[in-house]
Amino acid sequence: MTKFVSYYRADHTIAWGRLDAETIYDATPAAPSLAAAITAGSLESLAHYTERPVALGEVALAPVIPDPGKIICIGVNYRSHQDEIGKPAPQAPVVFARYADSQLGHGADARKPAGSAQFDYEGEVALVISKPAHRVAKAEAYDHVAGYAVYNDFSVRDWQRAASQWLPGKTWPGTGGFGPCLVTADEVGDVTELELTTRVNGEVRQRAKLADLINDIPSIIEYVTTFTPLAPGDVIVTGTPGGVGLFMDPPGFVVDGDVVEVEVTKLGTLRNTVRDVA
Amino acid sequence: MTKFVSYYRADHTIAWGRLDAETIYDATPAAPSLAAAITAGSLESLAHYTERPVALGEVALAPVIPDPGKIICIGVNYRSHQDEIGKPAPQAPVVFARYADSQLGHGADARKPAGSAQFDYEGEVALVISKPAHRVAKAEAYDHVAGYAVYNDFSVRDWQRAASQWLPGKTWPGTGGFGPCLVTADEVGDVTELELTTRVNGEVRQRAKLADLINDIPSIIEYVTTFTPLAPGDVIVTGTPGGVGLFMDPPGFVVDGDVVEVEVTKLGTLRNTVRDVA
Repeated sequence: MTKFVSYYRADHTIAWGRLDAETIYDATPAAPSLAAAITAGSLESLAHYTERPVALGEVALAPVIPDPGKIICIGVNYRSHQDEIGKPAPQAPVVFARYADSQLGHGADARKPAGSAQFDYEGEVALVISKPAHRVAKAEAYDHVAGYAVYNDFSVRDWQRAASQWLPGKTWPGTGGFGPCLVTADEVGDVTELELTTRVNGEVRQRAKLADLINDIPSIIEYVTTFTPLAPGDVIVTGTPGGVGLFMDPPGFVVDGDVVEVEVTKLGTLRNTVRDVA
Repeated sequence: MTKFVSYYRADHTIAWGRLDAETIYDATPAAPSLAAAITAGSLESLAHYTERPVALGEVALAPVIPDPGKIICIGVNYRSHQDEIGKPAPQAPVVFARYADSQLGHGADARKPAGSAQFDYEGEVALVISKPAHRVAKAEAYDHVAGYAVYNDFSVRDWQRAASQWLPGKTWPGTGGFGPCLVTADEVGDVTELELTTRVNGEVRQRAKLADLINDIPSIIEYVTTFTPLAPGDVIVTGTPGGVGLFMDPPGFVVDGDVVEVEVTKLGTLRNTVRDVA
């Protein structure tokens, strides 16, 4: 597996490097950021990079790509989630935005607005774009994917559902969990075989295979790049399966102290603890 | 009036300057961009700047702020537009995103996707944020506004309405008309007195006063900065009044060759010609 992480140095600046087991090899001399390395096409040459070791346990992880120009989120993209919503399948992909400054890394606290009683998880698989992508046909879509990572599209449901457009519930600071690491596409292999599991305090809430996506990854890339050009380091978050707290009976929203884990085969486990923020 | 524009140099790089009648005074020696000057708080000191003149007629205008980190759009924010949609007033502001690479300046062609038969205009007033704005109370909202400009939120209705979330119809390249210029807030005075008129080939389609906004500007700033921090140079597009092409009978969509003008008192006229793009 070739894995890469972004992490915080002691001075709060962000570094990145190759992750091998419990060691990060600081690759900032090669490129200032993971997105810059993707843009330069230099990830492959770093597959065996072993200089400048840093112990994984010594640092706080940052979002995999801390500052993507675009984070494109896909909604209602598993039949199991569509079924629980109880509406017919959308004619076209549901697409909305999240801003980069809403993200957090593996191990960081998810920031629940104290005034919200409807803070929810959405376990998802994110992909990172490898090269400029505008009007990409399905057949060429996978050529534009640098790799994959786990995402938790934490949602402030009362703000999401206050009006027709979801942005107000989808981009609060500290709500876009993205980590622990990027796994390169060549190492992932057949992405449809990935299996996603979301647990709240150890209890399984969501479980799905990527094969269950209504709009598969090539379809999403073709659709999105029809209306907006993507750049290396941009992120597409591919949607969440059934089992979100909103549609449980009674609702299974998460509260201060809850530990939410999203685990995806080959990609690892993203763990965030929910904390009330005044 | 203190007005500022962004414009293209002959080498396609973007400059900016103070606009006085038919002359731009190139202010790039003071700051690399209009957003940078706003961030530095230096617009006021440039109110009488008269060096490095460039004839307005000699250059192509760029979007007022070519590369805002966030463009926050407000939907359904005039009673006249809400009435034509025929749905009850939303409980909360409708908020969605547009990306910076979808913008165009005054005089540029609006790019209609040739495959769309539902290309539409939305005349609006945009405001530009002057200083970091997070959790701004209504009473302090106007302190965070650098100035105002005309916006045309051109919309690809078939893509906007293909699913519940509007982003796919709201961020095609060449669809966010923004210009001609920024007029500083102190020069605008009472923004509620501004009057907006949209014309297609000279025919009036929209007319409203900013006083008719359902959510006024302080309310919008308070609401938006509750869930996402804004930075100097970020843009809020405040919504469109009734009269869009979608709800005319028969629909009044615009097609290749149509000239769309959005005029706002004190802010000037934004003119774009619609062009089919394959």
